[in-house]
Amino acid sequence: MGEFDLIARYFTRPVHRAALGIGDDCALLQPAPGTQMAISCDMLVQGRHFFADTDPRRLGHKSLAVNLSDLAACGAKPLAFTLALALPEVNEPWLAAFAEGLFALADAHGCELIGGDTTAGPLNICITVFGEVPVVNGTSQALLRSGARAGDNLYVSGTLGDARLALEALQGKLSVPEAVLAVVRERLQRPTPRVALGQALRGIASAAIDVSDGLIGDLGHILERSRVGAIVQVDQLVQCIACHAQAAQTDDASDLHLSQEQWRALALCGGDDYELLFTAPTSQSAAVATAARASQTPVRRVGRIEAATGLRLIDDQGKVLPNHYASFDHFA
Amino acid sequence: MGEFDLIARYFTRPVHRAALGIGDDCALLQPAPGTQMAISCDMLVQGRHFFADTDPRRLGHKSLAVNLSDLAACGAKPLAFTLALALPEVNEPWLAAFAEGLFALADAHGCELIGGDTTAGPLNICITVFGEVPVVNGTSQALLRSGARAGDNLYVSGTLGDARLALEALQGKLSVPEAVLAVVRERLQRPTPRVALGQALRGIASAAIDVSDGLIGDLGHILERSRVGAIVQVDQLVQCIACHAQAAQTDDASDLHLSQEQWRALALCGGDDYELLFTAPTSQSAAVATAARASQTPVRRVGRIEAATGLRLIDDQGKVLPNHYASFDHFA
Repeated sequence: MGEFDLIARYFTRPVHRAALGIGDDCALLQPAPGTQMAISCDMLVQGRHFFADTDPRRLGHKSLAVNLSDLAACGAKPLAFTLALALPEVNEPWLAAFAEGLFALADAHGCELIGGDTTAGPLNICITVFGEVPVVNGTSQALLRSGARAGDNLYVSGTLGDARLALEALQGKLSVPEAVLAVVRERLQRPTPRVALGQALRGIASAAIDVSDGLIGDLGHILERSRVGAIVQVDQLVQCIACHAQAAQTDDASDLHLSQEQWRALALCGGDDYELLFTAPTSQSAAVATAARASQTPVRRVGRIEAATGLRLIDDQGKVLPNHYASFDHFA
Repeated sequence: MGEFDLIARYFTRPVHRAALGIGDDCALLQPAPGTQMAISCDMLVQGRHFFADTDPRRLGHKSLAVNLSDLAACGAKPLAFTLALALPEVNEPWLAAFAEGLFALADAHGCELIGGDTTAGPLNICITVFGEVPVVNGTSQALLRSGARAGDNLYVSGTLGDARLALEALQGKLSVPEAVLAVVRERLQRPTPRVALGQALRGIASAAIDVSDGLIGDLGHILERSRVGAIVQVDQLVQCIACHAQAAQTDDASDLHLSQEQWRALALCGGDDYELLFTAPTSQSAAVATAARASQTPVRRVGRIEAATGLRLIDDQGKVLPNHYASFDHFA
């Protein structure tokens, strides 16, 4: 099967919102008046971002999910995406499953495939996604990393650390009970981009980022761009690891032997969760709760922004903890 | 060097036209009122699109050039691009040279790097480019593949076949005199996207495509989308291969032994030239000439669109030639 047949069979669908989709030299998008276009791009490489034997349905989902998560972190409404795909071979069942996972998520968000490229090469998936952000009275409503201010509350959506636990288990570094693994593997392989929450936080959050590299790393980007510091209640974070709750409810929970240090490391350094980490002034506390309810997304307050730069970690007694999480592999 | 240092050192530059560039979850572009955004995406894989030892300066140029060529074929004005880069290792001299070639071309076209991704992996370069097309009285001015009509003239810019000749020579399949190779290797490795011509043809050309796969294949896309046929004067095409003229002027031209069949195959099947192939009504002949002059781009009439579908090749006596070019390797 040649490149054009492959595109026609698996990836060409009529567009409804784009002015022109697949099949010409360019796609055409006509942004609504009074909007900006938000653009993000992620490349997934086999062996680095996913295992060779990853279910292609889940891989199709995840390839778009990580991009939609960037739109969510910007408060943008998804519009369209391009897909560039390097394939070592034309494996039709693999392509059909990949396309199914991809389009299921795309359709759920009204996000159209408008163009791309396919070529022979080591498996590589590069998606560029386009979203829309309103501009109100000349001011963009995009959520940026640079808007956090001293006194703002720090929030995280959903749970952090689950994807990392699944990764450690799949790599054979940790033994995880089957019931727990079933939960966390979904979090690793089928992450949920927080698209509705991101849009609901426009005009409310002062800064936002999605957690792809782990809370410490990604919070660091907000602190650096906003020129502020933060204090984080680590045990609040641990409480909201899904696997922590799951393990407590499961008969075989006693098989999941993690030290307090390891729970904390999961919550602080676990990447690949694609939750939103955001800040908002205390005056917006009620509005944050309303946005969370409206978008049906759990949100938890996990700390506070401070004027003094740097990150301080405290336990549930308010005691400052040494921050050695970034530089130490707690699972080796 | 980590991902963020690498991006900061080689790829972060201030943006002038984008609302937000590199460094947040998304970049932000605000299209001008009354415009559409043209979007195209190309992925280049080592071993397939370029040799491992290709000069990184030329590779940086070419990676963006093939994308700008898609904008040109659409009549779009370049605005911005994203770059996703999988690198087998962090080779600083390579990165510096790649960035130099990339930004030299980007700056020449006022096209800003606004975002992207870097990761470890087999060398892979994926660029998505954004351009602007005016919408006049509700009608897009984009040049599409679907607008060719019976009676239109068929034109090609510049020269076709040179990049293929260079490829054959670099692969050791043909022996090419040094003076000729110097010319055609530049055509292969530093192609010139016809951006000014594409914009000058808005409102004049009825259909356009850039020649990346060879004239026969790319003309086929216009014919299929427009549901028409064409007649092509093959020897007109051969006359405008740059290496043909060059060989005739060069002392060692006699070393370039190509059969008439091979000259024709170069002109008809040589890919990677990134010239514009376009159609225009006969009433626009003078306007085409003016657009060519205004954009300082050579343009030659090479055929005509006909109502009867299919492609007919004729020689300079008007005799119909058998079309076996697509299915036969004339250089093996």
